[in-house]
Amino acid sequence: MSNSLGKLFKITSFGESHGGLISIVVDGCPAGLTITEADIQSELDKRKPGTSTLTTPRKEEDRVEILSGILDEHTTGAPICLVIRNYDTKSDEYKKSRFLPRPGHADYTAYMKYGGFNDYRGGGIFSGRVTAGFVMAGAVARKLLSLTGLEILAHTVEIGGIAAQPKDLGEIRENVAKNQVGCADPEAAREMATAIKKAKGEGDSLGGIIEGIALNVPMGLGEPIFDTLEGELAKALFAIPAVKGVEFGSGFSAARKKGSENNDPFVIKDGKIVTTTNNAGGILGGISSGMPIVVRVAIKPTSSIAQSQQTVNMKALESANTEIKGRHDACIVPRAVVVVEAMTAITLADFALRAGLIPRVIK
Amino acid sequence: MSNSLGKLFKITSFGESHGGLISIVVDGCPAGLTITEADIQSELDKRKPGTSTLTTPRKEEDRVEILSGILDEHTTGAPICLVIRNYDTKSDEYKKSRFLPRPGHADYTAYMKYGGFNDYRGGGIFSGRVTAGFVMAGAVARKLLSLTGLEILAHTVEIGGIAAQPKDLGEIRENVAKNQVGCADPEAAREMATAIKKAKGEGDSLGGIIEGIALNVPMGLGEPIFDTLEGELAKALFAIPAVKGVEFGSGFSAARKKGSENNDPFVIKDGKIVTTTNNAGGILGGISSGMPIVVRVAIKPTSSIAQSQQTVNMKALESANTEIKGRHDACIVPRAVVVVEAMTAITLADFALRAGLIPRVIK
Amino acid sequence: MSNSLGKLFKITSFGESHGGLISIVVDGCPAGLTITEADIQSELDKRKPGTSTLTTPRKEEDRVEILSGILDEHTTGAPICLVIRNYDTKSDEYKKSRFLPRPGHADYTAYMKYGGFNDYRGGGIFSGRVTAGFVMAGAVARKLLSLTGLEILAHTVEIGGIAAQPKDLGEIRENVAKNQVGCADPEAAREMATAIKKAKGEGDSLGGIIEGIALNVPMGLGEPIFDTLEGELAKALFAIPAVKGVEFGSGFSAARKKGSENNDPFVIKDGKIVTTTNNAGGILGGISSGMPIVVRVAIKPTSSIAQSQQTVNMKALESANTEIKGRHDACIVPRAVVVVEAMTAITLADFALRAGLIPRVIK
Amino acid sequence: MSNSLGKLFKITSFGESHGGLISIVVDGCPAGLTITEADIQSELDKRKPGTSTLTTPRKEEDRVEILSGILDEHTTGAPICLVIRNYDTKSDEYKKSRFLPRPGHADYTAYMKYGGFNDYRGGGIFSGRVTAGFVMAGAVARKLLSLTGLEILAHTVEIGGIAAQPKDLGEIRENVAKNQVGCADPEAAREMATAIKKAKGEGDSLGGIIEGIALNVPMGLGEPIFDTLEGELAKALFAIPAVKGVEFGSGFSAARKKGSENNDPFVIKDGKIVTTTNNAGGILGGISSGMPIVVRVAIKPTSSIAQSQQTVNMKALESANTEIKGRHDACIVPRAVVVVEAMTAITLADFALRAGLIPRVIK
Repeated sequence: MSNSLGKLFKITSFGESHGGLISIVVDGCPAGLTITEADIQSELDKRKPGTSTLTTPRKEEDRVEILSGILDEHTTGAPICLVIRNYDTKSDEYKKSRFLPRPGHADYTAYMKYGGFNDYRGGGIFSGRVTAGFVMAGAVARKLLSLTGLEILAHTVEIGGIAAQPKDLGEIRENVAKNQVGCADPEAAREMATAIKKAKGEGDSLGGIIEGIALNVPMGLGEPIFDTLEGELAKALFAIPAVKGVEFGSGFSAARKKGSENNDPFVIKDGKIVTTTNNAGGILGGISSGMPIVVRVAIKPTSSIAQSQQTVNMKALESANTEIKGRHDACIVPRAVVVVEAMTAITLADFALRAGLIPRVIK
Repeated sequence: MSNSLGKLFKITSFGESHGGLISIVVDGCPAGLTITEADIQSELDKRKPGTSTLTTPRKEEDRVEILSGILDEHTTGAPICLVIRNYDTKSDEYKKSRFLPRPGHADYTAYMKYGGFNDYRGGGIFSGRVTAGFVMAGAVARKLLSLTGLEILAHTVEIGGIAAQPKDLGEIRENVAKNQVGCADPEAAREMATAIKKAKGEGDSLGGIIEGIALNVPMGLGEPIFDTLEGELAKALFAIPAVKGVEFGSGFSAARKKGSENNDPFVIKDGKIVTTTNNAGGILGGISSGMPIVVRVAIKPTSSIAQSQQTVNMKALESANTEIKGRHDACIVPRAVVVVEAMTAITLADFALRAGLIPRVIK
Repeated sequence: MSNSLGKLFKITSFGESHGGLISIVVDGCPAGLTITEADIQSELDKRKPGTSTLTTPRKEEDRVEILSGILDEHTTGAPICLVIRNYDTKSDEYKKSRFLPRPGHADYTAYMKYGGFNDYRGGGIFSGRVTAGFVMAGAVARKLLSLTGLEILAHTVEIGGIAAQPKDLGEIRENVAKNQVGCADPEAAREMATAIKKAKGEGDSLGGIIEGIALNVPMGLGEPIFDTLEGELAKALFAIPAVKGVEFGSGFSAARKKGSENNDPFVIKDGKIVTTTNNAGGILGGISSGMPIVVRVAIKPTSSIAQSQQTVNMKALESANTEIKGRHDACIVPRAVVVVEAMTAITLADFALRAGLIPRVIK
Repeated sequence: MSNSLGKLFKITSFGESHGGLISIVVDGCPAGLTITEADIQSELDKRKPGTSTLTTPRKEEDRVEILSGILDEHTTGAPICLVIRNYDTKSDEYKKSRFLPRPGHADYTAYMKYGGFNDYRGGGIFSGRVTAGFVMAGAVARKLLSLTGLEILAHTVEIGGIAAQPKDLGEIRENVAKNQVGCADPEAAREMATAIKKAKGEGDSLGGIIEGIALNVPMGLGEPIFDTLEGELAKALFAIPAVKGVEFGSGFSAARKKGSENNDPFVIKDGKIVTTTNNAGGILGGISSGMPIVVRVAIKPTSSIAQSQQTVNMKALESANTEIKGRHDACIVPRAVVVVEAMTAITLADFALRAGLIPRVIK
């Protein structure tokens, strides 16, 4: 297992879905950064379950506790441990189906790789609930990056095949929090919500696409040839359960373009070098160019569905059926929006420190 | 900069496109593995330039030399250094355009990040030529993995919007080497070749999609929650210049599926647990399931095109035009097929060692 | 800051001396290892303060809590978080002397490096109290290593210039727990205890030397040329506050020997290759040879002493005097014995996993 | 194997004693640093063999070649590969004694750990010759550190039990290059040289102690609690073959001092906080305090001696005798002085980058 991420801004995750807590340790954050519980709680609240009819009925306060690394509302330079407690755990259902892996879920590989010793209750560390830790660390990273003027946004661009119309930054900033699906296009948002309810009613689930955007990114983030900005962002984003694809700028559609279409011409604007288009998604040669970073992640439909599915009994090695009684989101895309922001922030904070762009003490 | 990749099977790249050589150091390969120059050369030849009318006219022998780590055709346990020399370098054109970044290329960020000290000749380390080092390391990784029966394939599935028809494994194995574009569908291959020639004639370029497949992968590769198999593969693949998207299994199309469609049912076949479909691309919870790993990478059209393009003079900070006179592939997809295989092999070799599945001495 | 250690068996420390808790996360421990709180508590008790007249009067239960990673008394493969709470914190004295660094202590560098934002209460993360976390992780490592038959011992060989007579393994195993100073020589132990009490009475402190021994070490631990067994053990041991020297085998005395004296002749004994002497301390070329590993660490006298000392006011930049009122051990050597064992165990566990000598699932 | 060292200033070693070359790759050096072959050669010459009657008769030019990463005498930001070729290799003797491990040498563990596939010729990568690579990387690190005014010295303080009298910095700077043993005390230097010749005449060898000193070290190098300055320096120094002990400041002698003696009082001098003594060796809490860093390394007597020694035939598993005919230094201490400087420089350069004290582009 490898539950740490990052080189200078380093996070370490521990805790399980149905254990006592979910936690993240942030090591390497410069000293002197102002951080309050409210800074973290406001981010956590964006992924909290049970807040709308679209999400899992599991009720969790998800209230952050700061266990270390912050004194008098400032980071001390020491590792910051942030936790939320688990309260509403109902593990009985999981005990019954312990040997019946849910299709599409990590149940099977977790059981096999860890010899059956894995914490199967609620998926253990393979639960989407661990992303609450990512969000807490992301809140610290965002606060740190905000010192450089950097801003991170994410929004739902597709759910269940319903695509949002492209919106400008102003609309994204304004609309995402206004609907239950985190979409900048209000009309599409309504359709997405309806589609999720319908899928839920059918005991089924939906996937979608989230777009992350980073603005005012300093030139020079990324350490090629192996620690490219794309590569490290992708690695961080693939840690979000259910992510199965990551693309930057024109991404897969670049494969269908000509060079003359896909290349972004350079021009001088207000004394600075910029490009007139941004097919590169703000990244050239694995290094941020100063243009907005644009990344899109494909999220598969929730694997835990209420319909009866064909599976096996791993212990008895015989065919079986499973009907999942746990409490699950019919579509995790809306709650994953803030997680995409968090992983983006964590990765950029690490690169900003590696590039020497953030001092080791904030004054 | 960070020019090393991997934890236990670790590669370090050095050398530049127009310097004396391109090189890779492989550290952590178990001792006792039989490796000859022929093992590596046969892989290198697959990406060698100048072999068809579709590729760059740059002529390079690309003959591997083993500088260390191998004695009497066996790995010694010490770092293996593999190099190819550069001969056909014509750097004059690059000197002239030193301050005129090619749109879509790393010229701009390399110049800015390294304060103008970067080796601009032929793109320096940002040249696709560094992937020859990846291929050499990949040859070692493949040899190592072959001990477990693991097999890695890749093939072109799309170029310039022309998509190959799905082919079975037998056809892929047989057809890929038969055409200049590395495609398993002979008819599509012909169209792709025509399209590349046409783009070349227009001073333009094309992108495409390559699919990598790993067969007979042992269950248990991947170290969640952060070193997932998807995440580390993606990181390795994004080190290939021009890659802008990576997806696994049903990938972005999963976003449009329902859970009941996308989940892969488990069944028992020949006493083993398998899935009837493989939308997961052989990876559940960031860990290999034993099913074939399937990854697709989007490759943008070559940024170096012969048409006149709008750019800036970075030194003078004024508008400029650039017409690229260097020798470039109008489509790098065909030569990148073996590079996708190499990065896949390198990543899987690292995970196999981390999982304790390969002994430290091969006997 | 870098609060993680190890490559495959990786520990991450968080928590402060006068914060809520001291904690360690162990990531990478194979699944299926039996671990109970008692396994850890028995180690923790060896360094618990307040147990004899020789130690700090600070009273702490130091009762371990398992927060994650263990289910039904077995490791799950997920990160194991172990904590002890702080109860008996008296921080007022530290507030008063916040700007008066204790000579010989980290107060000065902590204040300067972290811009005054460091948690100064009780030394924050620079307190010897963080080694309780090392001991908890060490308990897991020892349990893991015990599967291979490996055994780790440590004992006090010198305090305040009083040297113990060399004792054989049987005596070490038997005598160390019998006295308050962890010494295998009962007579020297009495003198050491007297010397500590005397120093304490004078408001002064003593240092000493601890010897660590690892028995039944498999051949092959160590990954040269940089991750040598000596190098990684030394790095781990220097993380113990107050350690200022580390030597292996004949160590510094080797500098005065001839090669013909210092070389350990090889012989065959019971069908195995062994050496007749062990000046190498069980390590040749940075790799364990199978002979006992022998390491000695020099521990400086506790820097916090009750005498008045010359210092400066870091804020006012003026001369000052400090008289330390905190509760400190006049000699930390006795309580550090188990910490030396812990760091040795943690390092060897990491190397055993790297060498592929321990399976990823314990059955 | 792990042949890389460092986090941001990272070196990777490859090449063998009797292979084609010895090489080091330096990755992470800021761009724009002026480096010429002469800068590196002058350091290399200090450890070159065959320059005096005291060293091995092996004749090697040890002429540095820059293979990558430097353009127009400036670093480009890309990995710098530096090599020296091997010419005077006489491997026949090694073939004969392939299965007869030299007592005290890595022959035994190298053979066992790498299953007999290790390059046994001249010790392969376990030869002291690999330290030529360290010296080349050290030359780059020293050049980089010199930008901050930091200066690194080392000198022999003991050989074969002959201890140099303490000398001041001026004498150290002046005298070390004047004698064959790198000692600041001319009288002791003569005795040491005589002792080495005598040992050589007897087919024996001597060890000794080298002291490294770093001056004008900025406060704040070191990343506790695990990446302490002592820990990382020790790890780097233990990579030098034959090092068996490392101590800082008062080191092992601190174990015999009282706190009131060993603590360094703080005073204000020229507006800066300094200590009146330096028992801490310039390091408090694992972080540089701004006082000179003082480290001493114990070097064992060369294990390769000409006398007949008791060993075993590893293949036949039977007793044997070995008389080593290779060409070896009777005392490697003199040639190791510059290697101690190099490892110190490499470690400090890494920490200076980690602390953000050196810009990523040198202007």
